[in-house]
Amino acid sequence: MQYMVGIDLGGTNIVCGLVNEQYELVTKVKRPTEADLGVEHVLSKMSEMVDELFVKAGVDRSLLVAVGAGIPGFIDPERGVSIFASNLKWNNVDVSGRLGAKVGVPVFIDNDVRMYIFGEAMSGAGRGAGIVHGVTIGTGLAAATVVHGELHYGSGFMAGELGHVAIDGETTPCGCGLTGCLETVVSATGIARQAKEALEQGRESLLRTPYERGELTAAHVSQAYDEGDQLAIEIMNYTGQVLGKGLAYSISLLSPDVIVIGGGGALAGERILKPLRDTLKQYVYHGYLERLTIRQGELIDDGGVIGSAAFAKSRAEKLGHVSL
Amino acid sequence: MQYMVGIDLGGTNIVCGLVNEQYELVTKVKRPTEADLGVEHVLSKMSEMVDELFVKAGVDRSLLVAVGAGIPGFIDPERGVSIFASNLKWNNVDVSGRLGAKVGVPVFIDNDVRMYIFGEAMSGAGRGAGIVHGVTIGTGLAAATVVHGELHYGSGFMAGELGHVAIDGETTPCGCGLTGCLETVVSATGIARQAKEALEQGRESLLRTPYERGELTAAHVSQAYDEGDQLAIEIMNYTGQVLGKGLAYSISLLSPDVIVIGGGGALAGERILKPLRDTLKQYVYHGYLERLTIRQGELIDDGGVIGSAAFAKSRAEKLGHVSL
Repeated sequence: MQYMVGIDLGGTNIVCGLVNEQYELVTKVKRPTEADLGVEHVLSKMSEMVDELFVKAGVDRSLLVAVGAGIPGFIDPERGVSIFASNLKWNNVDVSGRLGAKVGVPVFIDNDVRMYIFGEAMSGAGRGAGIVHGVTIGTGLAAATVVHGELHYGSGFMAGELGHVAIDGETTPCGCGLTGCLETVVSATGIARQAKEALEQGRESLLRTPYERGELTAAHVSQAYDEGDQLAIEIMNYTGQVLGKGLAYSISLLSPDVIVIGGGGALAGERILKPLRDTLKQYVYHGYLERLTIRQGELIDDGGVIGSAAFAKSRAEKLGHVSL
Repeated sequence: MQYMVGIDLGGTNIVCGLVNEQYELVTKVKRPTEADLGVEHVLSKMSEMVDELFVKAGVDRSLLVAVGAGIPGFIDPERGVSIFASNLKWNNVDVSGRLGAKVGVPVFIDNDVRMYIFGEAMSGAGRGAGIVHGVTIGTGLAAATVVHGELHYGSGFMAGELGHVAIDGETTPCGCGLTGCLETVVSATGIARQAKEALEQGRESLLRTPYERGELTAAHVSQAYDEGDQLAIEIMNYTGQVLGKGLAYSISLLSPDVIVIGGGGALAGERILKPLRDTLKQYVYHGYLERLTIRQGELIDDGGVIGSAAFAKSRAEKLGHVSL
């Protein structure tokens, strides 16, 4: 048995997981990122966490063949450089080179969304499928596509910003410079924003209580939906419809076998998926839908770690570092 | 020098072209398809046309290494079978097997849109680019994507039906079973339809004369546009906007280096491309547009033939039949 380590590097926490050849998570450790202490501090901590995993699992450290790290932001996976990661305040950090020197095995990096979707494609809701298209719904929304085991990168490794296509009728300014981007609706943030704006316009709803406490989140909207709250139902329906109109293009352009809906927003489940499916029937040629399965992500919490490990395995095999 | 033959098989005519290793069209011949005389008649005629090309060009027939044929309809390019071609009334015709036996070299087939876009990617407006996304605007609209020299097929070889995504506010029934598909607006047919409907509602326009003669086409709309006709300007602007909103998704999902606009509708040129570009600025993250070039197709008339020949060369090389 050989092992990979997958690292999910976030602005708040680093999660490292020991993953075996069957993409099973053997054990994991979590530590605060402390990005403000500098790049070297974070890279050293990641290296220590890699060692810690093997001690914790009682596995021989020499069985480690590759490390994968998912990093939020703009990544050059070919050179292994984190070009720009705003949460970490990292600019042009040679993660593969510097972390690789510390851990003594090849290190492969990519952005966190692609790592997660790659994990779902190889070992989660998309396993066994030829073409897997995935979206992560969290603070924002992003997409990635895995074509027969290979991520589609696009020019500049930029493919997948489905969250930054503007939607007619939406007027919320987006951090990307556009107005009314898809993720201003279809995201945890977007769901909470829709509720807040309706309440500010005087709508009656169960959501007024958490709103007045300054606590309103997407989870409250899900809860109110389950209690039959009309505003919450309208918001979830609209959110699923907007996602469906966007995915109509993904489906027609890519013809995926499976679409995986992941990220925290996937917890909304059928509240969003029902209007999404209804919308697709109106917006997409039926021939696509007959061969398409839409699934919630299976790896939600561990997806970043498992995906990063699977990515490292795939890359290391391709480059001939290992034969697993 | 070795040679390929590219075949553009349409419902009305067959065009065969002799193409050299530099993707240059040496000579071509055209004959009526006569599909009503049966599959064997059409395949025999194609085989005769292949021989005719070499006689016409004074090139040794033994220098032919592969034949490619672009066929309208639903094709299985792996098995070389034309699954369903409504113009030809062909069902499950083993074109690669049957035509291959006649011509004595490997025959590779695909649908006509993919062949055309492949040709533009290898030897036309997209040559040298890593990711080429193309749309053909003709009677309908379809898309194809070439990723580092490989077509993206998707599940069931169905990727690319961008013309069959429904558009909000559009109510024209589409042959695919949906209502208001993108190609009911963005196509030669769609442009003429928009004009007819506006005229039927009493709009004043230079287009009334060809309309009353029962001759109104998209070419008349282009001409009226150039003469400053307000209705024609509105139609071209709206058509470019709808295409732009669709391509916003292509760009965000795929991050192409080049988008090629081909087919007869590409003749509308800047009349459509200007509103298309303006729309993209509002609907797509600027980072994509900075690296993207939008170009009219270069191979308009000969694209199907050159693309089919280029496709045959690519496939034959991959399968080890030839090394060009």
